[in-house]
Amino acid sequence: MHDEFLIGIDLGGTNIKGALLDINGGIIEKKEIPTLANTGPEAVAGRIAGMITELEITARERSKGVTGVGIGVPGQPERSTGDVIFAPNLYWRNVPLVKYLRRKTALPVFLENDANVAALGEQWRGAGQGSANMVMVTIGTGIGGGIVLDGCLYTGANGAAGELGHTVIEPGGPQCSCGRRGCLETLTSATAMVRMAREAMDRGVITELFREENLEARDIIMAARAGDRLALEIVEKAAYYLGIGLGNIINILNPDTIVIGGGVSRAGELLFEPLCRAARENCLESAGSIVRIVPAQLGNDAGFVGAAQLVLQNTKR
Amino acid sequence: MHDEFLIGIDLGGTNIKGALLDINGGIIEKKEIPTLANTGPEAVAGRIAGMITELEITARERSKGVTGVGIGVPGQPERSTGDVIFAPNLYWRNVPLVKYLRRKTALPVFLENDANVAALGEQWRGAGQGSANMVMVTIGTGIGGGIVLDGCLYTGANGAAGELGHTVIEPGGPQCSCGRRGCLETLTSATAMVRMAREAMDRGVITELFREENLEARDIIMAARAGDRLALEIVEKAAYYLGIGLGNIINILNPDTIVIGGGVSRAGELLFEPLCRAARENCLESAGSIVRIVPAQLGNDAGFVGAAQLVLQNTKR
Repeated sequence: MHDEFLIGIDLGGTNIKGALLDINGGIIEKKEIPTLANTGPEAVAGRIAGMITELEITARERSKGVTGVGIGVPGQPERSTGDVIFAPNLYWRNVPLVKYLRRKTALPVFLENDANVAALGEQWRGAGQGSANMVMVTIGTGIGGGIVLDGCLYTGANGAAGELGHTVIEPGGPQCSCGRRGCLETLTSATAMVRMAREAMDRGVITELFREENLEARDIIMAARAGDRLALEIVEKAAYYLGIGLGNIINILNPDTIVIGGGVSRAGELLFEPLCRAARENCLESAGSIVRIVPAQLGNDAGFVGAAQLVLQNTKR
Repeated sequence: MHDEFLIGIDLGGTNIKGALLDINGGIIEKKEIPTLANTGPEAVAGRIAGMITELEITARERSKGVTGVGIGVPGQPERSTGDVIFAPNLYWRNVPLVKYLRRKTALPVFLENDANVAALGEQWRGAGQGSANMVMVTIGTGIGGGIVLDGCLYTGANGAAGELGHTVIEPGGPQCSCGRRGCLETLTSATAMVRMAREAMDRGVITELFREENLEARDIIMAARAGDRLALEIVEKAAYYLGIGLGNIINILNPDTIVIGGGVSRAGELLFEPLCRAARENCLESAGSIVRIVPAQLGNDAGFVGAAQLVLQNTKR
């Protein structure tokens, strides 16, 4: 059993990515198909089951069994029942995903939130390798987080831990999608950067960004690289607030490593230099002096790699 | 060995409290002597050793051995060497406490920060009994924190976890003793409440608090109970900010229980009602709906009870 293979699935709003991995996280085979969320939950589950079957065949060709399947879902799973309580990108509410999969596979299936499996993936095979206490912060449309303590995913009392994006950093600040004000993700996500740019342009600030019809965070980062003043200010401001958010996490969790993932993290030194500075300025020295803040390494593979590790976490001993 | 006794010591700036406990945390004998920090570290260590010897004699009279000694120190211990790196209330820097104790006792000795042992004590025998993921927040001159996950003290990568008082809640806010601005403890500690009262009185606000020569947080709480408007506003404001700080902890750690300790927590419903409201308003519903926010139960015993539990944490298996 200890040299059996693992299957990791990353269920996204657009694509389903999956892979067969060996016990050390080495990728044997990768697959990717469109999610087609509009075909409904049962059809999506059928497509996942098909992918699992194909990966099992590959394992069998190598005379290996499969220990189990881990799935990262873009929302809130109920681990005990195998239901997906809520996945806004898929328009899912209370979908019995594991029950659907049971019809097609006898393998044990484990669900976890996608930000959590990405953290697990980076800790196992990516930027967090060898870390005992790691936090991953994913900066995209929103801000997600995952916490790995002593090599195990930490999910809290009812699986809701790691919601770093909704920590309040500026009471009374910008309105957040969660209903509160001044959450970290209103001050530093891709969405927040675009909002800051629009507000400045509405105030009449002159910027290269005027040229962009559908302004995205990546345009702001490119303009900042080209020296656009407004874009530079926005990146600096996002880094400042993210630094405060990270400083708070460092003060609370004293991690040895913080991994920054997601599109915005691709801004490179432009973001990392002011970010690391702000993070260390906003926490106590003893914790701040030892934490490494590093970019994610696995990119889009983090999800299925972490999902495969989830199988090991749930089947050890 | 499994029915041997434990010794817990709570080293404070004013008093040394200690106790002999059974394996279930039942108190066999309690002791308290003045610290006399001005006599120097070696003399203080000698007084602790004397207390340990007396408690060992009591154990022997009951035909029991002692598994070890846990000590909560008001500062930063180096667990591996047994040194106290820094303890401002004792004027200690790099004091080899365990080495000093070695001269007088052969028992294993374990050091931990006092906020951490208090959390451990409340989780073992106090308000956090039965909790799997508990955070204790102690509100006094400053704000301390301790985190207990899966029944084990969580101290982070280099023992600095749980510094909730220095999470930044209001960037650019009031100056903190740590050098930063807007830390939780500048907005909601006993010290912060007194500062807010003084500022208001300097602005000419009429209040009962004028009568107090050496204004303390307890005076503000008493005046609030008696209906003083300024005092009520200050308690409400402290609860508001503390609620934001707790909301952030709930979003990050998703604990099942938060225990509030320290002098300010004795304000009772006056503080707890607005505090619980603000905490739940400042976190996501899934985590906020399940967390219990409760006052500490062990009072001054939490330190030595938790210190005794520390022995079990360090000697199991």
